Amino acid sequence: MTDPSAPAKRPRVVVVGGGFGGLAVAQALKNAPVDVILVDRANHHLFQPLLYQVATSILAPGDIGTPIRQLLAPQTNASVFMAEVSGVDVARKQVLVDYLNRRGVPFKYDYLVLATGATHNYFGHEEFAEFAPGLKQLTDATTIRDRILRAFEIAEEVADPQTHQDLLTFVLVGGGATGVEMAGSIAELRRFTLKSEFRRVNPAEARIILIEGSPRVLGSFHPDLSRAAQKQLEHLGVEVRTGVHVTKIDATGVMIGDERIASRTVIWTAGVKPSPASKWLNVPADKAGRVLVQTDCSVTDRPGVFVIGDTACFMADGKPLPGVAQVALQQGQHVAAVIRAQVEGHRAPGPFKYFDKGSMAIVGRNFAVMEAGKIRLSGYIAWMAWALIHVLYLAAFGNRVSVVTQWIWTYLSHKRGSRLILGSGGKNPLYE
Amino acid sequence: MTDPSAPAKRPRVVVVGGGFGGLAVAQALKNAPVDVILVDRANHHLFQPLLYQVATSILAPGDIGTPIRQLLAPQTNASVFMAEVSGVDVARKQVLVDYLNRRGVPFKYDYLVLATGATHNYFGHEEFAEFAPGLKQLTDATTIRDRILRAFEIAEEVADPQTHQDLLTFVLVGGGATGVEMAGSIAELRRFTLKSEFRRVNPAEARIILIEGSPRVLGSFHPDLSRAAQKQLEHLGVEVRTGVHVTKIDATGVMIGDERIASRTVIWTAGVKPSPASKWLNVPADKAGRVLVQTDCSVTDRPGVFVIGDTACFMADGKPLPGVAQVALQQGQHVAAVIRAQVEGHRAPGPFKYFDKGSMAIVGRNFAVMEAGKIRLSGYIAWMAWALIHVLYLAAFGNRVSVVTQWIWTYLSHKRGSRLILGSGGKNPLYE
Repeated sequence: MTDPSAPAKRPRVVVVGGGFGGLAVAQALKNAPVDVILVDRANHHLFQPLLYQVATSILAPGDIGTPIRQLLAPQTNASVFMAEVSGVDVARKQVLVDYLNRRGVPFKYDYLVLATGATHNYFGHEEFAEFAPGLKQLTDATTIRDRILRAFEIAEEVADPQTHQDLLTFVLVGGGATGVEMAGSIAELRRFTLKSEFRRVNPAEARIILIEGSPRVLGSFHPDLSRAAQKQLEHLGVEVRTGVHVTKIDATGVMIGDERIASRTVIWTAGVKPSPASKWLNVPADKAGRVLVQTDCSVTDRPGVFVIGDTACFMADGKPLPGVAQVALQQGQHVAAVIRAQVEGHRAPGPFKYFDKGSMAIVGRNFAVMEAGKIRLSGYIAWMAWALIHVLYLAAFGNRVSVVTQWIWTYLSHKRGSRLILGSGGKNPLYE
Repeated sequence: MTDPSAPAKRPRVVVVGGGFGGLAVAQALKNAPVDVILVDRANHHLFQPLLYQVATSILAPGDIGTPIRQLLAPQTNASVFMAEVSGVDVARKQVLVDYLNRRGVPFKYDYLVLATGATHNYFGHEEFAEFAPGLKQLTDATTIRDRILRAFEIAEEVADPQTHQDLLTFVLVGGGATGVEMAGSIAELRRFTLKSEFRRVNPAEARIILIEGSPRVLGSFHPDLSRAAQKQLEHLGVEVRTGVHVTKIDATGVMIGDERIASRTVIWTAGVKPSPASKWLNVPADKAGRVLVQTDCSVTDRPGVFVIGDTACFMADGKPLPGVAQVALQQGQHVAAVIRAQVEGHRAPGPFKYFDKGSMAIVGRNFAVMEAGKIRLSGYIAWMAWALIHVLYLAAFGNRVSVVTQWIWTYLSHKRGSRLILGSGGKNPLYE
């Protein structure tokens, strides 16, 4: 029995966050002579790369969310607490936690790993949030799913042609991987899945507009792949607008400079901001708000404290590593090795080195772009590779069969397995 | 294009409710020379008999909820509207509808079928609802799932032995099929699924108490089967209390007469009350509130109006037919035949006759009770029959593969595929 407030007999590692980074730390300490406490405000690890498939009704939330407790069950040196971290008392070496509305007994730590990730970033326009939900957690995905499906339902009922068209206009703000993948998936929902189900709506007339501030979508990929992705999006009927900025979002549309696009469904895929880890630790952050870390992901003048993943700024070749799953995961494994070396009295491993396994984005069925080192691929082969790699990764989380079943079913039938509106009817400000 | 407010060229049948009854009406009118409008406040048909499996994390909501629109897509004479019905104007033959917060243009009807089902019945104790959610819709199931899983999570954190035990005490009020099936499923969740995942909670120590006011559980079954079910529940560790009534429920427990059972998770499975169809029509209702219908399910003095399923009181052999899926479904098919005969000028079919295909209830894995005519079975064979029959029925709703996959996975691994807490953290009154 682990009592998180009692003095530990073995060094205690408190890991905050059960995403790719935090989970990697805990799992890599499996046989280390330490007690691991993992804290997360959710009960599940989320396979975020497939979140857009929940938002577009393909997968069920349970397909990409696995209880952290289940993943760490066989690991007897680890315990899991579902709690919200509200701060760190660096002097006393303890983490402040809340359970729902109660303040809990703080967790004492010998080592602390903050893997608290990022949330959507409205870049100072917090008023956009009400009208343009972002996509980071499962509940975001079901909110967006509700809004997309509800827009079609209401369009079926509304006779006024202008409102009807506004309801069928979907705007995605941000042309990174999430925006591109969402746009492709909504395009196919409209073109195939909803086809012939409506009597007053022709789903094929729905507009999908993807807005990107920089000159091209998928800015982190090679320009050739950006072009390929944009071409494929346009082939699917998505209107891609690059080099323009959204200046206003309200209940009935968005403004791009002086131009107004009437829309009742705006989705924010434009950016992320890190968790407040730098404030908890009272340490310097980079411009984006990420904690500046050493080459072993530790924090200067904060003994025993490490920060990894989206909430850390790790400089490599003069620029910060990107906020992707692989960085968090590899940093997690590295930090576990560092802690283990200290506890067992071995020599510390060398500085963390990120091994870039490449990146991919899917654009509807049968088309993806991928890039790994000098290899660049787009089209069907990349799509097959995408599916295979994601199935293999998901296998680690015990969801493989269900996801594969759903994918095959959706692929063959054009139907989506989780097309539910579950939000309570009266609360969506967009339709009042 | 169907305009629901315009005068129809062909007779129009408005069906309210997309459950087993309403869907059966719409589908049975497939080739009839009528226009069918189906209205439901949800976008999905719900396979209610498996709702308890969503509440206990086995199935995902999408596994048992299929878009009504998808089910009726091939039927060109049918259109579907997602709207809330707020009344019926019998004189003008129209149905009053609300879309979210807007009042819609009423639907004119030539024939109206109300298949609006039932909701939980707190028998005058509406104050119980906050503390003891019932199980009728998908959102009820995810609310209950949240509460059950959260109780275990909080128990892991709470050191005080009394509170710890209260959090691990689950009370089910009502020993009908839903209560029995829930109790069995929670018992196995505790015994197998959560085993070894907690460090401070021993899930096997959780108490599950099933309370039934009448002398036996499964009162609609033969007493032998009630006994068999109770014995199996007790074998699974469920405490069955029959012949006692709950007199109070609050945030920390329930009262049975003078006895207090401390519990943070109370679930209401005790009864249902019909929709307000009798008020909409301003016609007499039975004591339970159901509309008294004729032998063809029509309503006296309300030309063209039929009421079916849980919201109708259809007398057969001196007592009302039970509120089960088969009754609703068969009545739906019958009413479609009656309407068709009138529209096409055929002779009306004879009075509705319910064919009782039997009933079943599952009690954990490998055990069910079933009854059909004089055949009564309990145990493994009944359980196999239960699974087979449910898979065959589900097939009609396109969810077969996914459900079977989940069932086989849960059966073999003891893991549950949808063990997610998705409710927002701060809103559960039970833990404040």
